[in-house]
Amino acid sequence: MDDAEALPDKTPRTARGRRTLRKLLDAAAVEFGEKGFHEASISSITRRAEVALGTFYTYFDSKDALFRALVGDMSEAVKVSARDALSDDMGALEIERAALAAFLSFAREHREIYRIIDEAEFVDPASYRDHYETIAARIAKRLKEGADAGELREGLGETEAWAMMGMNVFVGLRYAVWSDGDPDEIASRVNALIARGIAAEPD
Amino acid sequence: MDDAEALPDKTPRTARGRRTLRKLLDAAAVEFGEKGFHEASISSITRRAEVALGTFYTYFDSKDALFRALVGDMSEAVKVSARDALSDDMGALEIERAALAAFLSFAREHREIYRIIDEAEFVDPASYRDHYETIAARIAKRLKEGADAGELREGLGETEAWAMMGMNVFVGLRYAVWSDGDPDEIASRVNALIARGIAAEPD
Repeated sequence: MDDAEALPDKTPRTARGRRTLRKLLDAAAVEFGEKGFHEASISSITRRAEVALGTFYTYFDSKDALFRALVGDMSEAVKVSARDALSDDMGALEIERAALAAFLSFAREHREIYRIIDEAEFVDPASYRDHYETIAARIAKRLKEGADAGELREGLGETEAWAMMGMNVFVGLRYAVWSDGDPDEIASRVNALIARGIAAEPD
Repeated sequence: MDDAEALPDKTPRTARGRRTLRKLLDAAAVEFGEKGFHEASISSITRRAEVALGTFYTYFDSKDALFRALVGDMSEAVKVSARDALSDDMGALEIERAALAAFLSFAREHREIYRIIDEAEFVDPASYRDHYETIAARIAKRLKEGADAGELREGLGETEAWAMMGMNVFVGLRYAVWSDGDPDEIASRVNALIARGIAAEPD
């Protein structure tokens, strides 16, 4: 999350303030993940974060504002975890494989992300839409770079980006949240699908 | 929906009863789609359905029971709309293309389905899971049949089925619910992705 964007007038200016904000966001992830938005309470979140109730309002105006900031924070965390798994020497297909494996590992460690992002569809539809549009735009950019490098087909774009994002989200739900699949094995299978498709090889 | 399964002791036995049940389900789709589960009310649903409030309880014990039946009814409608688009002379890849095009057309006409299925994750998690597990099993079965016919690669299974379902769900969200894409064009692009992948053709 770009703090300055999410909290126009409440951005912490000190390291201590940033640590407190971090504690509030981490506590909010647990609270919203366990209870859902409507049952979650600010007082329970500040208790989890070991932060005084009054301090909360230094950072956020409301439970809604905290939820919105949390969705942005999770989008950023997904982005960073994927980026950290990539290196400059990877080809276009290897980048997609590594990004998915990193996402699956991230989702296993942060299973609450699905519930929180999915609940954003109802609690904060603009954040929900922004989350997916941002990821799709990132994938579309990688597809274009891969085509420019001659590694991927020409003409891939937004439709393929949304399709690939959907694949990643659903295999994450199935194999990271609902069960413990091996991230590398799942990512390799999905990568084979996008690399060469499902058609039989011509004889 | 298998009425007998969803409504063990309240299955309508007459044609008139089945028409009333249909009116209640259709009204529920509009009500839950517009207001969400928590704001929706039985009295508003019976008003929309032009059914007496007391009649509701001939069919359902509660708002929860109606919601559960509606999710099952929508799963069934998705299945029927895909099945009606298929014919015996289609190859395995053409089947996937036609099934997706049918789903996109269905979702354009029934945009509320996304909100209702997605809300099931919170209101009725078992129905949510069942909805997707049933669809994935159907896709996995088609992949096996395609491999048996020599049209698709051997070894495709559950992982590929979840990946393909995710593609379909997300392109539906993007191009049927959030905007009006051409179902045939979108389905053809996604079909090219699953048919031959995104890698550049070898020179």
